[in-house]
Amino acid sequence: MKHYLQFKDFSAEEYAQVFARAAIIKRKFKAYEKYHPLVDRTLAMIFEKASTRTRVSFEAGMYQLGGSVVHLTTGDSQLGRAEPLEDSARVISRMVDLVMIRTFEQTKIETFAAHSRVPVINGLTNEFHPCQIMADLFTYLEHRCLDDEGMPDLNRLRGKVVAWVGDGNNMANTWLQAAELLGFTVHVSTPSGYEAQTKIAGISADSGCWRSFSDPLQACRDADLVTTDVWTSMGFEAENEVRRKAFADWRVTRQLMQAARPDALFMHCLPAHRGEEVEAEVIDGPQSVVWDEAENRMHVQKALMEYLLLGRVA
Amino acid sequence: MKHYLQFKDFSAEEYAQVFARAAIIKRKFKAYEKYHPLVDRTLAMIFEKASTRTRVSFEAGMYQLGGSVVHLTTGDSQLGRAEPLEDSARVISRMVDLVMIRTFEQTKIETFAAHSRVPVINGLTNEFHPCQIMADLFTYLEHRCLDDEGMPDLNRLRGKVVAWVGDGNNMANTWLQAAELLGFTVHVSTPSGYEAQTKIAGISADSGCWRSFSDPLQACRDADLVTTDVWTSMGFEAENEVRRKAFADWRVTRQLMQAARPDALFMHCLPAHRGEEVEAEVIDGPQSVVWDEAENRMHVQKALMEYLLLGRVA
Amino acid sequence: MKHYLQFKDFSAEEYAQVFARAAIIKRKFKAYEKYHPLVDRTLAMIFEKASTRTRVSFEAGMYQLGGSVVHLTTGDSQLGRAEPLEDSARVISRMVDLVMIRTFEQTKIETFAAHSRVPVINGLTNEFHPCQIMADLFTYLEHRCLDDEGMPDLNRLRGKVVAWVGDGNNMANTWLQAAELLGFTVHVSTPSGYEAQTKIAGISADSGCWRSFSDPLQACRDADLVTTDVWTSMGFEAENEVRRKAFADWRVTRQLMQAARPDALFMHCLPAHRGEEVEAEVIDGPQSVVWDEAENRMHVQKALMEYLLLGRVA
Repeated sequence: MKHYLQFKDFSAEEYAQVFARAAIIKRKFKAYEKYHPLVDRTLAMIFEKASTRTRVSFEAGMYQLGGSVVHLTTGDSQLGRAEPLEDSARVISRMVDLVMIRTFEQTKIETFAAHSRVPVINGLTNEFHPCQIMADLFTYLEHRCLDDEGMPDLNRLRGKVVAWVGDGNNMANTWLQAAELLGFTVHVSTPSGYEAQTKIAGISADSGCWRSFSDPLQACRDADLVTTDVWTSMGFEAENEVRRKAFADWRVTRQLMQAARPDALFMHCLPAHRGEEVEAEVIDGPQSVVWDEAENRMHVQKALMEYLLLGRVA
Repeated sequence: MKHYLQFKDFSAEEYAQVFARAAIIKRKFKAYEKYHPLVDRTLAMIFEKASTRTRVSFEAGMYQLGGSVVHLTTGDSQLGRAEPLEDSARVISRMVDLVMIRTFEQTKIETFAAHSRVPVINGLTNEFHPCQIMADLFTYLEHRCLDDEGMPDLNRLRGKVVAWVGDGNNMANTWLQAAELLGFTVHVSTPSGYEAQTKIAGISADSGCWRSFSDPLQACRDADLVTTDVWTSMGFEAENEVRRKAFADWRVTRQLMQAARPDALFMHCLPAHRGEEVEAEVIDGPQSVVWDEAENRMHVQKALMEYLLLGRVA
Repeated sequence: MKHYLQFKDFSAEEYAQVFARAAIIKRKFKAYEKYHPLVDRTLAMIFEKASTRTRVSFEAGMYQLGGSVVHLTTGDSQLGRAEPLEDSARVISRMVDLVMIRTFEQTKIETFAAHSRVPVINGLTNEFHPCQIMADLFTYLEHRCLDDEGMPDLNRLRGKVVAWVGDGNNMANTWLQAAELLGFTVHVSTPSGYEAQTKIAGISADSGCWRSFSDPLQACRDADLVTTDVWTSMGFEAENEVRRKAFADWRVTRQLMQAARPDALFMHCLPAHRGEEVEAEVIDGPQSVVWDEAENRMHVQKALMEYLLLGRVA
């Protein structure tokens, strides 16, 4: 039994498998072709932070695979409140087939997984957001790296440059793991004091998979993909004013996009604040693939759930 | 692609179609006959106001058609909070097949629909409540206007009189649109200052489809249907005391029902406050069809969802 | 039509039937054998108290039987707030096939049932928790009373001794009803002022089905099953400090377990507070079957729902 708690939990070969399945599953969805491999399987979703995208993408995705979903929030349940997390894991994993958790500390999800009888998926923690990076990579492959049969070709990611502009948060940490595993490079440009956490990501400071830039424009130079996130992620609202000042120069503008390669794409995991971390002209412009990116959350997660529950089906 | 944002979004011919389907779908339900035309289709329900009836009728209805439901509340999602409504519409409509929204301003639902890839249903706004009026009309037809084959005959609504007693709210506005479209007359009696909003409904002040009465008894004279709503709808609780005084004479009593035609029906969209807008003897009496009316929400909405997703299936 | 509002609502014969079905349904689940007798049936779950176990066990259980679930909380609905409970019962029971309610007063669930068109299940009230005791009995049977074909044999419960240590709450009351109905004995030991409510349970003070012990060790003497619950149940948090003192000696320790029969089992309906009502060495020790007990909530409730909706299917 495998869990999916951080990006490096899967090998490059496993990602190739999952992305291939995601492409096939997406085609079935678009063609209204019924595909119900997870009939009789139940996904429990545990939310300690609010969510629209994660809710809808996992829940609709599970239904489309023929399965069912139990949606628990800390508001209407007792998770981690009146009961040790270990006990919750033991009980819940007796009744369902798969658990998705969105929470704060990565240690929480690891504790849960250690006592679970069924696979556990990281639906976002303070430290990592692997499902989002999976969606981002799939979206990039779909737009730029298809093979002759229209299937995503992971090998073509080698040597590509991803520019991360802004907060060195869970997204940035996850990009580092992805780059090391899949052979591309991340140009990270964050304000001072908001650096990506290479130690948490398990990436050595001198790894070739990433370079640090004090100037976001330099980070975007010749990038194949420019991506960012809100200045103030959920849970950090108290720092909002301080962050607004610190991040003022870390905005993805048309100028930054012009520094990138002409065929560069723009991504954002949403929600976006136009005029803050990104100009409206960029996110609503021709290089932006943010809506495909959002939709692909669902498709890659369907492939992920299929893989965790059924293994290699093709 | 069609949306259903207000009553006049459908033609009389379309209502005839939807009501015919609702009758057939209701029969299947009563006979425990499985009918799953919406397998693999997902409905997102977005609630910004509390609801029991709308929740259960849409959700159970969708399941009975073989589909699935994702239930979002503003409490546990980011709708309209951290993200422009336009972006939410773009993202959610990439993942589901249909969206039902219960919110405040009609403009919100219109903005959402304008950026949605899939049909949007008005599950109640400050201005309109078309699903409820559809249920009310279907209930009236079922009790009084069936053809020889037991199917609802919309033509027999022509010339009927509906008495609306009380608040000139979203229900009243929607009755006006229905009357103009389907050829019956609404007698509206509201306290001064609580008039139905003909401008919002898009009904001219001199339209033949409605008449205004200062005396609720006169409004009920020879009515075929008497209907009302709570004095204080959700969202207006702060006005409660003022409203209790203003509405004191707008109570559907046995006397009012006696002014109506002998075969008149009584309806109420519920929840009801016995002793306020309606006497217990009326809502619990023989002319009341409020439980059928509540149940029919589900059946007409099933027909509505079938129509929006599959068009004319028969 | 039958409801399941307290333990004595079923006869011993009916429990034999339900337990036999639970065993069969559990085997199917373990073998990934699809069993969908409740296709097209919808369960409404109404929660006025938080819950993890009850949520997941009923919801996942219903999905596994092919049915659907509408989950209502008093937070996002109007149950008992803006509307008489009688009206909610009338409306909801028009749209769904089965209702599970977790609430405070037993009278509430009885009122709802009296106005419901469909069966109602008690998912916990202040007075009773019959689904939990059903799960506990099934778990005991599974571990100690199987017949030659591996099926639970209810007759073998006769003469057994169950020790209830701690709060004379809804669990204790339900154990009394179960003992009287099924012919075993409950040794009840509670602090003074926290006695089980025989009057509510409808058990005469001199019934042979139970004995009262001031010393919890004496209550456990030769018991076949030792069981307890948290010192402070949900809803009694204000009494927490007083209860901590009153219950200090009502802790299930290794010493108490040694007073019981060598093959005695330990159960706890969870969540558990190690070091308070139970020692870690007991709940995490070899006699504890608490995880099976939790899982069996789901299996017995599936059998219960099948029985209420379809009667004796085999």
